[in-house]
Amino acid sequence: MAESMKGLKRTHRCGELSGANVGETVTVMGWVQKQRNKGGIIFVDLRDRSGLLQIIFEESDCGADSFAKAEKMRSEFVIAIVGKVEKRAGAVNENLATGDIEIRAKETRILSEAETPPFPIEADSKTKEDLRLKYRYLDLRRPDLQGNLILRSNITASIRRFLTEEGFLEIETPILGKSTPEGARDYLVPSRVHPGTFYGLPQSPQLFKQLLMCSGYDRYFQIAKCFRDEDLRADRQPEFTQVDMELSFVDVEDVIDVNERLIKEVCKDAIGLEVSLPLPRIKWIDAMNRYGSDKPDTRFGMELTDVSAVVSGSGFSVFTSALENGGSVRGINAKGQGSMPRKKIDALVDFAKGYGAKGLAYLCIEEDGSYKSSFAKFMTEAQLADLVKAMDGEKGDLLLFAADKTNIVWSVLGALRLELGKQMGLIDDNRFNFLWVTEFPLLEWNEENNRFVAMHHPFTMPMDEDLQYMDSDPGRIRAKAYDIVLNGVELGGGSVRIFQSDVQEKMFEVLGFEKEDAYNRFGFLLNAFKYGVPPHAGLAYGLDRLVMLLVNADSIRDVMAFPKVKDASCLLTNAPDVVDGVQLEELGIALNLKEEATE
Amino acid sequence: MAESMKGLKRTHRCGELSGANVGETVTVMGWVQKQRNKGGIIFVDLRDRSGLLQIIFEESDCGADSFAKAEKMRSEFVIAIVGKVEKRAGAVNENLATGDIEIRAKETRILSEAETPPFPIEADSKTKEDLRLKYRYLDLRRPDLQGNLILRSNITASIRRFLTEEGFLEIETPILGKSTPEGARDYLVPSRVHPGTFYGLPQSPQLFKQLLMCSGYDRYFQIAKCFRDEDLRADRQPEFTQVDMELSFVDVEDVIDVNERLIKEVCKDAIGLEVSLPLPRIKWIDAMNRYGSDKPDTRFGMELTDVSAVVSGSGFSVFTSALENGGSVRGINAKGQGSMPRKKIDALVDFAKGYGAKGLAYLCIEEDGSYKSSFAKFMTEAQLADLVKAMDGEKGDLLLFAADKTNIVWSVLGALRLELGKQMGLIDDNRFNFLWVTEFPLLEWNEENNRFVAMHHPFTMPMDEDLQYMDSDPGRIRAKAYDIVLNGVELGGGSVRIFQSDVQEKMFEVLGFEKEDAYNRFGFLLNAFKYGVPPHAGLAYGLDRLVMLLVNADSIRDVMAFPKVKDASCLLTNAPDVVDGVQLEELGIALNLKEEATE
Repeated sequence: MAESMKGLKRTHRCGELSGANVGETVTVMGWVQKQRNKGGIIFVDLRDRSGLLQIIFEESDCGADSFAKAEKMRSEFVIAIVGKVEKRAGAVNENLATGDIEIRAKETRILSEAETPPFPIEADSKTKEDLRLKYRYLDLRRPDLQGNLILRSNITASIRRFLTEEGFLEIETPILGKSTPEGARDYLVPSRVHPGTFYGLPQSPQLFKQLLMCSGYDRYFQIAKCFRDEDLRADRQPEFTQVDMELSFVDVEDVIDVNERLIKEVCKDAIGLEVSLPLPRIKWIDAMNRYGSDKPDTRFGMELTDVSAVVSGSGFSVFTSALENGGSVRGINAKGQGSMPRKKIDALVDFAKGYGAKGLAYLCIEEDGSYKSSFAKFMTEAQLADLVKAMDGEKGDLLLFAADKTNIVWSVLGALRLELGKQMGLIDDNRFNFLWVTEFPLLEWNEENNRFVAMHHPFTMPMDEDLQYMDSDPGRIRAKAYDIVLNGVELGGGSVRIFQSDVQEKMFEVLGFEKEDAYNRFGFLLNAFKYGVPPHAGLAYGLDRLVMLLVNADSIRDVMAFPKVKDASCLLTNAPDVVDGVQLEELGIALNLKEEATE
Repeated sequence: MAESMKGLKRTHRCGELSGANVGETVTVMGWVQKQRNKGGIIFVDLRDRSGLLQIIFEESDCGADSFAKAEKMRSEFVIAIVGKVEKRAGAVNENLATGDIEIRAKETRILSEAETPPFPIEADSKTKEDLRLKYRYLDLRRPDLQGNLILRSNITASIRRFLTEEGFLEIETPILGKSTPEGARDYLVPSRVHPGTFYGLPQSPQLFKQLLMCSGYDRYFQIAKCFRDEDLRADRQPEFTQVDMELSFVDVEDVIDVNERLIKEVCKDAIGLEVSLPLPRIKWIDAMNRYGSDKPDTRFGMELTDVSAVVSGSGFSVFTSALENGGSVRGINAKGQGSMPRKKIDALVDFAKGYGAKGLAYLCIEEDGSYKSSFAKFMTEAQLADLVKAMDGEKGDLLLFAADKTNIVWSVLGALRLELGKQMGLIDDNRFNFLWVTEFPLLEWNEENNRFVAMHHPFTMPMDEDLQYMDSDPGRIRAKAYDIVLNGVELGGGSVRIFQSDVQEKMFEVLGFEKEDAYNRFGFLLNAFKYGVPPHAGLAYGLDRLVMLLVNADSIRDVMAFPKVKDASCLLTNAPDVVDGVQLEELGIALNLKEEATE
C-alpha cells in the first residue's frame, strides 16, 4: 500500500547534503537503490537525480514501525525519510559525494512499492537496447542517461542565455506547414477542414527565418523540432532538434564570430572545456585534398597525398587509365603498418570497395627496404622510389592507393583513413577538435538528372569574386557557405543567403527551374524579396549530435528522452498505431495498402 | 540594383544611438520609413527593430552620388548609411527616443529596392486581417507586432531563466506520438514505414511528463508545441504553445508557490508589473456561486446572488418550477441601469438565450421607487421587497434573474455579468487580476453518455478527505486541481496526479473504462506505476494567451509570427495544400472525398 506524503516536505535532494549538514534533521525522498540488513541494522542507499545517500535504520532509533518498513524495502521502492545527518560510522565511501555522511532514520514512509525491474538500474547497462526502450521509464533512471539529459538541459539553457544576450529573439515558426517536393521526404498531415489537402511537417524553418529577416527581426533563433521521413541511419531520428539562427546585415565573418563565441561559452558552461578561439578553418577543396572529407576528423594526421603526377608515366594501367579518364591517384600512409597480414589488407580492400573503389593498391615497405606490393611489378624501381618518397614512406610503412574519379578517390581514402585511425588507436577521445569548413562549391553536378543541384540549398549566395561565372561556368562557383565540424562530425552548417531577386532568379535558372515552378514553390519568399530585404545569413546546428559529442554518448538515442528506433517506431508507446476508421473518414482519406506478395 | 554591403559593418541599431553619441561616425542600416525633400535637403526616417532614426542628406556633405541615391529612396528601401551623429538642427521630436539627434550622411548604399507595399507599415493598422496575413512578412514589420514578438521572446526567456534556477530541467518530448481517442481530435501523420498506421500529434505532453517523474527527473519543464484538430474559435489555433511543468514529491501548495513566484518574476521582467503575493484564491464552488464562472474576471463586482429561498414561495412559475426541478434562481444587480430602454433589455434576454436560458426575468427600480418588471405581477409586495433587499437593490438599479438548472443559471449569469461589465465600462484595462481557482469537482456527469467524465483528466488526484466517496458518491469528490486565471481568462491549470495504482484503477472504474481498455490506452503509464512512482503534480500554461494578456493584444494571432486563420489554413504559404499522388501511395493512403451535394 502506498502511503501519502501528507505533513512531510522534502528539505534536500540526496546529493545536496554533505558534512556541513551534520546534526541537522532533514527530510529526503527518493528511490531505494539497495537495501541490506547487516546484523540487525538496515542500510539503504537512497537515490534521486542528484545522487545517492546512505540511510541507516536501527530499531531503537526509528521504532518498530519504521524498522518493519525498512525490512520490507526492495530496490526501486519510493520512500520518504525524516532523519538526522551524521558523520558516517563505517568506512567512508570515496566513490560517493555524500560518502562521509549517513542519515539516521526517525520517520519512514513507503510512498510507492515496486516490482522487480526487468533490468538493473545502473550506469553502463549491458541490457539490450530494445528492452531498454520498451521500459524507457526505467532506462531513464540510469545515472548515465540522467546525466546526459541533465547536460542537454544545461546546454540548451546555455545556448539560449548566450544568444539572448547577443540580441537574438527566439521566435516560433509553424510545425503545420506546407509540403515542398524539394529535398528529403516530408511527413504529411491530412487536413480535416480541407479534405484532400495536407500540411507538411518542416524539415527546417529555413523559409520562415528568411521571412523574419525580411520583416526586420534582425537576429532570430529557435531551438526547433524538424522532421524528415527518411530511412533511419544510426545517428538519425524522424524528428530531431535544430538550433537555428539567422542574422541581418552580416557577412560570413559575423556569423562565424558569434558562433565561435557561442561554442566557447557552451563548452565551458556544459563540460568545463576551454576552447581557444579563433577555431581553425579549412577551405572545402583543401579538406577534400587533405582528408578526403568535407567534415574531417583532425584529431590525427594520415593525410591524403595526390600522386597522380608521380604515377602518370607508370605501366600500371589502373593508375594511368584513371588519369586518362580525368580522375586522380591518391594515397595514404599507414605508418608502421608495413607488416600488416595479407588477410587484413584484403579486408581493407573490401572496405574500400564498399565506398565505390574498384580496388585498392598497396605497397608494404619491409624492414629490409624491399617492397611487398600489388602493383610494384608494373613500375620501374625509379618510379617506385619516387612514389615512396612522395608518400613520405619509411621502413615499416603501409602505403594504400586509390585511383578513380577524384570524387570516388576522396570518398574511399577519406573513409579508409578514419577506419585505419580507429584500428591504429590514433584517435584521442578526450580531444575536441572544432573546425570550420568554408568555400563550398555552390553547385553539384547530378549525373542522374543531368543538371546542377544546390549543394546547400538554392538560396545560398555565391562568393563575390565568383559571381562572374554564373553564366559561363557555374560549376566553379564557390558559395558563401560554411559548416562547423567537431571530431569528424558535421555539427552544423549555414550560408549567406541570396537577397537580390536578379541573382536568385539566375540561380533558379542555373538549377533548371522554370520561373513559374520556382514561384509555385517559394513564391512567398520571392515576393517578400520585392519589398526591401536586408543582406542576411544563418546557421543551424543539430542539437542532438552536439549533445551526443559533448557528453561522449554512442548514439543520439542516448541524449533524447523518448527516441524512436530504426523503423521510426516508439517501442514504449507503440506509435505509430492503427486508428479508428471514423478518424480517416473525417480526414477524407482511406487506406490503400499494397497486398503483400505471398507464395 | 542592389548594392553589396561589402566593406561596411553596422556599428549600431537605430534606437541604440542617443545624444551621448554626438560627434561619432556610425554605420546604420535599415528600412526607409519615410523620405522627404525640403528645399534641397533630404530627410529620411530610417527604421529597424529598435526604432527610428533621422538621416539628413546634403549634397555638399555626402557628394552627388549619395545624394542621387537619397533622392531615389522610397518607403521600405533597405539602405546602409555611414555618417556623423549630430544634435538635431530642427525641432526635437519628443515622440522619438532618438528625437534629439540626426545622422549626417557621408556614404550611402541602397542594399535593396522596394515596391510600394500593399498597405502602410505602421502601428494600429486598419488593414483587413486577411490581407495582413497574406503579406505577413510586411505585417510583421509593424512596430506593434514587432513589440509583441519581442516581448514574447523576453517572456519565454524569463520563464526559462526562472525555472532553470528553480531546478527544473527542460526535456523535449516527441511530436510524433501515439493517437489516443480520448479528448479532442488528434492530428494524424501516416507512417510510410508501417503503412496503415499513424502517429498522432500531441495535445499535451501529459503522459510523457508523468513518465519523466517516474524516471526520477524530479522537476521537468518544456515550452512545448501542442496540437488540436478542433474547429477554431477566436482565441484558438491548431497548434499552440504550452509552458508545461511537472514536479515530484510535492502537493498543491508547492506547485502554487513556485508558480506564484514565476508569475511575479515574469510580470516584472516583461512588463514591469509588480504582482503582490500570495495571489488570491477561490474555491471552484465559490467562483461559480459568486461569478457564475470557473474563470472569474475579478476586476469588477456585480456578483451573483442566490435568491432561490426568497422566491420559493412566489407565484411566478418560472421561478418555482426551476426550484422544483432541483435548479435555482439567481440574479445580478446592474447598478444604475434601472432606466435601460426596453429594447436594450430585450437584447440582453436574447444574449442570455444564447447561453441556454429560456428567458431572463428583470426588475427595474425606478427613481420613484416603483418597479418595472417582467414578473412583478406574480409576486406580492412583501416578496418583491424581500427580493430587492436580497439583491441590494436601490433606486435606479436593474435586477436580472435566471431560473433553471444551476449549471445553466451560472453559465447565463456569468456571461451576462461579463457583457454588462463591458457595456457599463466597469473593466479597467490596466489591472491584472490573477486568481487561483481550487477544489474543482473531480468528475462531471455527462448526460449524453450517462456516465461520469473527468473534469481535468483521469490522472487527477482526489482530495484526501474526499477519497472515501470514491464508491459511495463519486460526484461529490473534489480534486487536487487548480487553475490560474488572469482577468477572466484561464491562463493555465493542473493538478496533483494519482500515483497509486489502486486509486488509478478505481478511477478508471468510476469513469466506466474496462480494465483492458484502460491498459490499451494508457498501459505504458500504468506499467510505469508498478516500478516505484513518486507523488507528483504539475501545471501547464497557454503561452499564447499569457503573452496576449500581458501585451494587451486583441487576439493570439497578434502574438504569433505565422498564425493560421479560422479554417486552419495559412494565408501566407497556402498550407494545407494538395500533394503529389506518389507521396500518398508511398504512405499507403488514398483520397476518399465525399462528393459535394449538387442540385
